[in-house]
Amino acid sequence: MKIGLIGFGKTGKAVANVILQNVQFDLEWVLRQSTQLESRSIHEFLGVEFKEQRLIYSSSKITIQELLDKHPVDIIIDFSSETGIYTYGKIAGERKIKIITAVSHYDEAERELLKKLSLETVVFWSPNITLGVNYLLFAAKFLKKIAPWVDIEIIEEHFKEKKGVSGTAIKIAEALDLEKSDINSVRAGGIVGKHELIFGFPYQTVRLIHESISREAFGNGVLFVAENLVDKEKGLYNFEDILLPYFSYDQ
Amino acid sequence: MKIGLIGFGKTGKAVANVILQNVQFDLEWVLRQSTQLESRSIHEFLGVEFKEQRLIYSSSKITIQELLDKHPVDIIIDFSSETGIYTYGKIAGERKIKIITAVSHYDEAERELLKKLSLETVVFWSPNITLGVNYLLFAAKFLKKIAPWVDIEIIEEHFKEKKGVSGTAIKIAEALDLEKSDINSVRAGGIVGKHELIFGFPYQTVRLIHESISREAFGNGVLFVAENLVDKEKGLYNFEDILLPYFSYDQ
Amino acid sequence: MKIGLIGFGKTGKAVANVILQNVQFDLEWVLRQSTQLESRSIHEFLGVEFKEQRLIYSSSKITIQELLDKHPVDIIIDFSSETGIYTYGKIAGERKIKIITAVSHYDEAERELLKKLSLETVVFWSPNITLGVNYLLFAAKFLKKIAPWVDIEIIEEHFKEKKGVSGTAIKIAEALDLEKSDINSVRAGGIVGKHELIFGFPYQTVRLIHESISREAFGNGVLFVAENLVDKEKGLYNFEDILLPYFSYDQ
Amino acid sequence: MKIGLIGFGKTGKAVANVILQNVQFDLEWVLRQSTQLESRSIHEFLGVEFKEQRLIYSSSKITIQELLDKHPVDIIIDFSSETGIYTYGKIAGERKIKIITAVSHYDEAERELLKKLSLETVVFWSPNITLGVNYLLFAAKFLKKIAPWVDIEIIEEHFKEKKGVSGTAIKIAEALDLEKSDINSVRAGGIVGKHELIFGFPYQTVRLIHESISREAFGNGVLFVAENLVDKEKGLYNFEDILLPYFSYDQ
Repeated sequence: MKIGLIGFGKTGKAVANVILQNVQFDLEWVLRQSTQLESRSIHEFLGVEFKEQRLIYSSSKITIQELLDKHPVDIIIDFSSETGIYTYGKIAGERKIKIITAVSHYDEAERELLKKLSLETVVFWSPNITLGVNYLLFAAKFLKKIAPWVDIEIIEEHFKEKKGVSGTAIKIAEALDLEKSDINSVRAGGIVGKHELIFGFPYQTVRLIHESISREAFGNGVLFVAENLVDKEKGLYNFEDILLPYFSYDQ
Repeated sequence: MKIGLIGFGKTGKAVANVILQNVQFDLEWVLRQSTQLESRSIHEFLGVEFKEQRLIYSSSKITIQELLDKHPVDIIIDFSSETGIYTYGKIAGERKIKIITAVSHYDEAERELLKKLSLETVVFWSPNITLGVNYLLFAAKFLKKIAPWVDIEIIEEHFKEKKGVSGTAIKIAEALDLEKSDINSVRAGGIVGKHELIFGFPYQTVRLIHESISREAFGNGVLFVAENLVDKEKGLYNFEDILLPYFSYDQ
Repeated sequence: MKIGLIGFGKTGKAVANVILQNVQFDLEWVLRQSTQLESRSIHEFLGVEFKEQRLIYSSSKITIQELLDKHPVDIIIDFSSETGIYTYGKIAGERKIKIITAVSHYDEAERELLKKLSLETVVFWSPNITLGVNYLLFAAKFLKKIAPWVDIEIIEEHFKEKKGVSGTAIKIAEALDLEKSDINSVRAGGIVGKHELIFGFPYQTVRLIHESISREAFGNGVLFVAENLVDKEKGLYNFEDILLPYFSYDQ
Repeated sequence: MKIGLIGFGKTGKAVANVILQNVQFDLEWVLRQSTQLESRSIHEFLGVEFKEQRLIYSSSKITIQELLDKHPVDIIIDFSSETGIYTYGKIAGERKIKIITAVSHYDEAERELLKKLSLETVVFWSPNITLGVNYLLFAAKFLKKIAPWVDIEIIEEHFKEKKGVSGTAIKIAEALDLEKSDINSVRAGGIVGKHELIFGFPYQTVRLIHESISREAFGNGVLFVAENLVDKEKGLYNFEDILLPYFSYDQ
């Protein structure tokens, strides 16, 4: 599967690193706004060995059309910002290139655009694209269905400097109909990221815990999604749509 | 729902305690082998207040037939031993009384009997009838389906005197195709019971944890099962059959 | 060592239970305000076997002086309320009976009385008399001395109905110069009691965790204190004074 | 304080990184066997900004004597291998340069050399030089003194590929008189490193947990030791000697 990556911030770099080390996927190019690192080799920059040259492009030097003409891809992965979609959305729709976007927030306009594009091609959006967090959310919703009366609280732990409540914790709380006061935020030292869901029953306790080790987890999430979109019809998908088919009595 | 309880050991007592405190269920009687406590009031013995007298019977003083004639029930719950089924199985089949057995182990002969009885009535068997442990098993199998290559290990912690590896841990290991060496057993002090499943991904870790607080958890499990068997057709059920219908896209 | 116990609420009963099962200690009597259970055997009531009769007395039927004349003790253990000290304090001072009080809160007047009594006999006071919590406090203060700049947060978890922030958590926070906002309170199901101290360093995390299993932990704490007061001179002691001598380079 | 660093493997690099970012310390040079990276700037290589040039030297191109003549230091920090001590030990003793070695294992001959050098200068050795692990060991030994009869087990978790039982866990087990069977080793995914000590009491449980986030923790440990060796007389020290003075009633 040929992949083009939009965005090359800290997470974009980690994702590129994971894709490069997976033989089933071929990272064709990286496209970013900044001209920094322009025309440099992705592999060389990340210190990974690779058979062929794959370059970092700047959108101020080359159009997405030129780039896709020279280096066509099957999937575009977007780790840029809210407006990134305007760069590649239209042409991806026209050329039936699948879109996987992990942008953390979209306004109404961009959400509408995603819907429109999903009439043309496969469009996937998940604000937190790690397998672990999405599994946690899925498993938690299921437990709440079984025991709607159970007491639930969330503990999220992150490094001291992290401002505000974790977006992932808020998303989980919303999905479980919890109050903001049910989220406990710990900020201490260099904790990368931990989310713990506590389900308190009268005589037993269930805990679902996700611990992040590094940003590369987003890369594995992207590849998991990419693999699971292979046979999908055009349409708009989220992580729950990807997980659901795994669930069946016979498997 | 009218309930008859077979067996009155430590767990049987805890289960009786939970049933008595739930207004939706009516514990009609307890039947046990021993003549100890014979004819004593269940409520009085457990120190729970109740409107009516409900007694403890010994199977050496009254037959199950007499007991059911005097005090008919909708469900028989079995916390006795492997052979308990021979006392009440046949008549339960004849009278379409539902059977919930939480006996931890049955040999081939008893398993066959359960199957035969399930042609007549609803028969449910779960060696560990707590909601939490069964949910854990269910959620773990699902995660393994999603990520079959993930590294899984189990840590089970119990009180110092507990002999051998936890039966629940062994059951989980079998369901996940793990080796016995993947189970780590900690024995220390008065730990009631903790099962932790560790799913190690390259850049993230997921942990599913169940902690027991007291035996009363079995009582809540029994009532959860009883509620979910209400509309079931005759047949043989396990805990997974009970959990599965909760899982659907629309709910 | 002969022990007299003041107070027979839930915790008092659990403490009596532990003392009765320890051969080094002899529980001579229980004294309580209520006339309920008056003259009943402690052992019989708790369902513990014992060689001799030991009774529950009510302070409305017998004076502490009469009781001590008939059944002298070496130590009085107080699990009653703030005013319990007025019942036995004076006579304990006169007869050099050691005092261990686990009353959770004293006003200024009672604190002064404890000080005055400590001029006559050994007086020990700890609002939370479990070994584990006191060790945690001790170990945490030490880590803070080593790394005064470390980020510290507390998570305390208890059963749903528990009102307000855990007193133990508040005490720990005060000892470590933390803000109340550094305490995260989780209330869910039947969690007996868990206190977790998180020390966040830039590249590592240390966690100190105490989990309560049952109230009997207070009984073991009392016996630990009693053993460690054997050779003590008269004076006022707290748990830190008991732990400190264990700490030395040579041991 | 002027520092010279011996060894520049993965851990050496992480340690250099931490020292460079601490204004109280001045990393004068790195000396390593390999000629790779020879004469390159430490800061440039690590991507850290710095006011002056500090270089990486190879011991095959320059002697330690020449290096110390040109760039004298107060402390030599050794993250090389068992034989590194022969390179710099003698001259460090002569010039009263303090030695901090974090080499994980020394044979009898090197241990003897350390002792001999400690007659001339301050010599510190710790096979695991993180603050967290040493604190854990210290706090655990103290708890065992208080409650020698308590049940203790260790759980150590590391990435899947890690061979054998964790050396740190073995060291802790030895210090606490545990059997090797009391160590439970979990190997899963990319877990950086976690050590959990479980103290099981009859009615309560204490857990001491250390989680590594990255190798930089060794750098912080080194600086903590360096600061605490400032006023020390010549002699041989370990981490316990550094922690002990923090412990006193008055502080």
